[in-house]
Amino acid sequence: MGMNLTEKLLHAHVEGPLPEKGEEVALQIDQTLTQDGTGTMVMLELEAMGVTRARTEVSAQYVDHNLIQSDHRNSDDHLFLHSAAQKYGLYFSMPGNGVSHPVHMQRLAVPGKTLLGSDSHTCACGSMGMLAIGAGGIDVAQAIAGEPFYVKRPKVWRVHLTGALSDWVSAKDVILEMLRRHGVKGGVGWVLEYDGPGLESLSAMDRHVIANMGAELGATTSVFPSDEEIRDFLKRQDREHDWIELKADTDAVYDRETEMDLAKLVPLIAKPSSPDNVVPVADVVGEPVYQAYIGSSGNPGYRDFAVVAEMVKGRQIAPGISLDINPTSRQMLADLVEDGHIASLLAAGARLHQAGCNGCIGLGQAPASGRNSLRTTPRNFPGRSGTKEDSVFLCSPETAAAAALTGVITDPRTLDMSYPRVLDSQQPALHVKMLEAPLSEEEAKHLELVRSDNIVPIKELSPLPDEIQLPVMLKAGDNVSTDDIIAGGSKVMPFRSNLPASAAFAFEIIDPTYAERAKTDSFDAGHIVIGAWNYGQGSSREHAALAPRYLGMRVVIAKSFARIHHQNLVNFGILPLTFSDETDYDQIEQGDVITIRDLYAQLEAGNVLNADLKEKGVLHLRHDLSSRHLELLRAGGSINLVKQKQAERDAAYEQ
Amino acid sequence: MGMNLTEKLLHAHVEGPLPEKGEEVALQIDQTLTQDGTGTMVMLELEAMGVTRARTEVSAQYVDHNLIQSDHRNSDDHLFLHSAAQKYGLYFSMPGNGVSHPVHMQRLAVPGKTLLGSDSHTCACGSMGMLAIGAGGIDVAQAIAGEPFYVKRPKVWRVHLTGALSDWVSAKDVILEMLRRHGVKGGVGWVLEYDGPGLESLSAMDRHVIANMGAELGATTSVFPSDEEIRDFLKRQDREHDWIELKADTDAVYDRETEMDLAKLVPLIAKPSSPDNVVPVADVVGEPVYQAYIGSSGNPGYRDFAVVAEMVKGRQIAPGISLDINPTSRQMLADLVEDGHIASLLAAGARLHQAGCNGCIGLGQAPASGRNSLRTTPRNFPGRSGTKEDSVFLCSPETAAAAALTGVITDPRTLDMSYPRVLDSQQPALHVKMLEAPLSEEEAKHLELVRSDNIVPIKELSPLPDEIQLPVMLKAGDNVSTDDIIAGGSKVMPFRSNLPASAAFAFEIIDPTYAERAKTDSFDAGHIVIGAWNYGQGSSREHAALAPRYLGMRVVIAKSFARIHHQNLVNFGILPLTFSDETDYDQIEQGDVITIRDLYAQLEAGNVLNADLKEKGVLHLRHDLSSRHLELLRAGGSINLVKQKQAERDAAYEQ
Repeated sequence: MGMNLTEKLLHAHVEGPLPEKGEEVALQIDQTLTQDGTGTMVMLELEAMGVTRARTEVSAQYVDHNLIQSDHRNSDDHLFLHSAAQKYGLYFSMPGNGVSHPVHMQRLAVPGKTLLGSDSHTCACGSMGMLAIGAGGIDVAQAIAGEPFYVKRPKVWRVHLTGALSDWVSAKDVILEMLRRHGVKGGVGWVLEYDGPGLESLSAMDRHVIANMGAELGATTSVFPSDEEIRDFLKRQDREHDWIELKADTDAVYDRETEMDLAKLVPLIAKPSSPDNVVPVADVVGEPVYQAYIGSSGNPGYRDFAVVAEMVKGRQIAPGISLDINPTSRQMLADLVEDGHIASLLAAGARLHQAGCNGCIGLGQAPASGRNSLRTTPRNFPGRSGTKEDSVFLCSPETAAAAALTGVITDPRTLDMSYPRVLDSQQPALHVKMLEAPLSEEEAKHLELVRSDNIVPIKELSPLPDEIQLPVMLKAGDNVSTDDIIAGGSKVMPFRSNLPASAAFAFEIIDPTYAERAKTDSFDAGHIVIGAWNYGQGSSREHAALAPRYLGMRVVIAKSFARIHHQNLVNFGILPLTFSDETDYDQIEQGDVITIRDLYAQLEAGNVLNADLKEKGVLHLRHDLSSRHLELLRAGGSINLVKQKQAERDAAYEQ
Repeated sequence: MGMNLTEKLLHAHVEGPLPEKGEEVALQIDQTLTQDGTGTMVMLELEAMGVTRARTEVSAQYVDHNLIQSDHRNSDDHLFLHSAAQKYGLYFSMPGNGVSHPVHMQRLAVPGKTLLGSDSHTCACGSMGMLAIGAGGIDVAQAIAGEPFYVKRPKVWRVHLTGALSDWVSAKDVILEMLRRHGVKGGVGWVLEYDGPGLESLSAMDRHVIANMGAELGATTSVFPSDEEIRDFLKRQDREHDWIELKADTDAVYDRETEMDLAKLVPLIAKPSSPDNVVPVADVVGEPVYQAYIGSSGNPGYRDFAVVAEMVKGRQIAPGISLDINPTSRQMLADLVEDGHIASLLAAGARLHQAGCNGCIGLGQAPASGRNSLRTTPRNFPGRSGTKEDSVFLCSPETAAAAALTGVITDPRTLDMSYPRVLDSQQPALHVKMLEAPLSEEEAKHLELVRSDNIVPIKELSPLPDEIQLPVMLKAGDNVSTDDIIAGGSKVMPFRSNLPASAAFAFEIIDPTYAERAKTDSFDAGHIVIGAWNYGQGSSREHAALAPRYLGMRVVIAKSFARIHHQNLVNFGILPLTFSDETDYDQIEQGDVITIRDLYAQLEAGNVLNADLKEKGVLHLRHDLSSRHLELLRAGGSINLVKQKQAERDAAYEQ
């Protein structure tokens, strides 16, 4: 029986036979990608792990998020990241060099390889036959250190593309159609594997558009074959040698199959405020528009800008409209300049911004309150634009440009204009020096990290002892989110590389006295936090585990956990337990002392364990920990575990 | 006896003979300029004044400062400003269209006219024979309403330029030489009038560079003749019809004369952290550089960017350097794109930003802590870059580019390179549609201001009554700054168009209970604030008068006042008084009630007046108010006064 492409990629990166679908696989990682928003903590984790050198084939640190530099913090971070990239042997993409995903695809991605990135849109490089997965920072740090990435083996969903796109319909409409059909949870647990004759009308960057927004379907990742189009793409980047052909066997079997006739697609638009709130553009024409926003990894290609330029060329945008152009890389900007497209955009009234992620994640260009913004970005969650009361629509560059010209939402097919079919640049500029190659091990040997006061090393985390006798420092209710545990936003975010400072905000929303009490009472000894249903829901941020751990949290007992946060707790050596009898939750009060004896023997013996709730009797608890999890707890979390392995490896190397 | 150019411009805009130097003149204003940072309050003042239509020849509202749009506030402000420009008959320069000063010079400035702007670099348009002066927002609001601007008649200082600039020396070095010679207070009370054969080697935009940074000398303004170079400049802008020749009479007399031989100038640099901390670049070569920043009204010309592009063309900037390119207008950016200069910059590794003021006023591109930043901007005050511990040098584009290439401060004359002498674009792009022309009176008639919740009309301010009996709400010490009265920074600045919200921060630094107490105790009745020496020093921000006035402050009694704040107090109908006997300051306590009877009779009778300090006897006070000031107080400030005049004018018009 033949294999699909996903299975081939898995097989090539997993030792021995693949486990059942849904079971964990240990995936060897060839390449990693970190961006600046998540990268500073990854670099601090590498330092804490004692890593001396990236053990991947390629690891790249990009600076594409925090480009505004309103004060010293972002610039200081950039220097720190640059020094870390040099020290650990990573590529470093300077501020202004562009968004990680398209730059990685252009310069470093290689068909057949695995890529793990601390950014949810890392999956974009699935466009060229990679297995590219977004993950938390600590997972990427482990991968850089040479450890495998543990992920549940996904099911494979074939999306068979037929036909060719009509005029005024482009790649964004393909992925919007997927979202319209299947919704934002439709891809959870799946790899979306695209194939079929429809691929012929989709360029490498078009496929990037589709793979990128697979994240919005919740998919583990998306995979496209590596075909002649990818060979051409790599050839234009002077990297034809990186190409290999990759595709599913003709008799491959899939867990699910869908067909999509590209010829039947119409211009689509996701209304506020979810990427799956998709309707035909024709359904919402005439609504007034404040902003047309072009850019982001959601439509990063030369074509995506050039088609807008061709549409507005010799015309003027509607009065009062903000047409915001956000180039996705220095190379692409240079190509757009060279070919006259930037001149057309400026003459028509567009506003040209620096190359980077920019307004896609609310860093600049926030729209006015309640005004409609049409964006080629991948997400329109409420407030993501930076404006609390925002009204963001997601669409193709064609649809956004049509609105810029008319001032209202417009089906581009109704413009009195012939469709400017633009190809990607055939001779792109290769300005590659701002993506600095790694230093040699010898050059990097004596480098020190460049660190400002706001970038603080992670202190050593001690392993969980075999006997626990700790007070309950906080008792929380249902649905505690990671935002409740450690807030996002401008108050806390500047301290993302400064655990002592950010820990002071831990649980502030639930109990502003927690951090102070935890520090005073049990900073060293530790404490327990009690949660109820769905503890740790929301954003995957690892600070929600790390910050309370910094203050001494060693155990969380809850009625249930959100999946990613459960993993994050274990990663940082915190024991997550659930109640066998949920009514026990009611018995426990803040200040109670809970005792667990022979912890590891109990954990290994099965899924239940007993604890003593002083003067209130025995507490019956459960756990859902694998042997890998127990290894993490014994070590005091993955930083310590990797540190041990690094030391063993280095010792073996020196002998 | 012949007249100098400054006198000619004054004569043309003052009724009757000029008063003595140092005495106030009432200057008729032909043109105004407002930027977005100060403009929202100006527009609210126009609304409060009941202005229906700008009475100037040209008034233009620019959006060039708050371009980052991290949340809805800036974008909401832009919409408000756009609607106000349309309603009141102003030009409106859309975000992304560029910095006010060069755009105004290119598109609207006219030799022989007066220009008043709510930006301290308004003086830049003195480059083309205008009398161009920076002022507070309320002054500009009055000018828009057709009222004269009151300014002390300046003395005139001839700067006679001879010779021609050597290779690698440019206009920035001329003004840095002025600052080296005369310091940041050297121009106070003066108009700097440039003439002489040296002008031949200075283009219109070179003169802009010099006139712009006259502000750093403290000069009232700078004036250049309107000669053939200006005619050519206007011709290239398709505005030759706006040109007239203007120069001093050959037998003109000046109050002071200086000569500068341009041929003798060398590349200069202002070290941190004052624009007059000037030394030859040769004195500081070799210091490591983090950033080379090109842009701002301090070096806004096409040439200033093109020379950098020519220098880095075919080369690569030094590793780790941030070469930040900040185009000053859409037109100039289009020209730089057209002529291949942007391509050269990108290929060399430069980072291209949107057109605007940007990092010049700390809005983006803040350098890393303590790292050297070489900038072509006009100011390097500590922290202005956005980084508290900054290290900013001011220099020419040539010197900044030399550092970008070598990574260290470098005298550009020592580069192994022939000097790329670049002229301004001879056929500039004329993309003028993003500078929207005013609507007609008919079109504007029924327009409403577009206002978000954060843009709040100014409530009516009542006139100061003839009998005052008010409590002392606050007693402050020496050197109270306008920052102490109402802080700058990200906490308070977002409420710059929202007096009720910003007033809550009034005097917060001195006494956090003030705002709450003022509101509770005497919101309507009013209160008195006591200051000591140098009350109201620092920034000219008018909120420092308006915010406490909003809370009921009617009188300030101090040992002495800072000049601008004294004027601001009167402008908002607040009575500034000083102690005849400074020791009386010690007698007064918070809560004391002070009574002044027959106020206006006393004020008119002379410079002294008596008050009663309940149970402590008579207070002997002084004032320094002109009859114009008294008129302002009687009216309750200039908003009310202009409102009365507007009403009278409108009534006269309707009869």
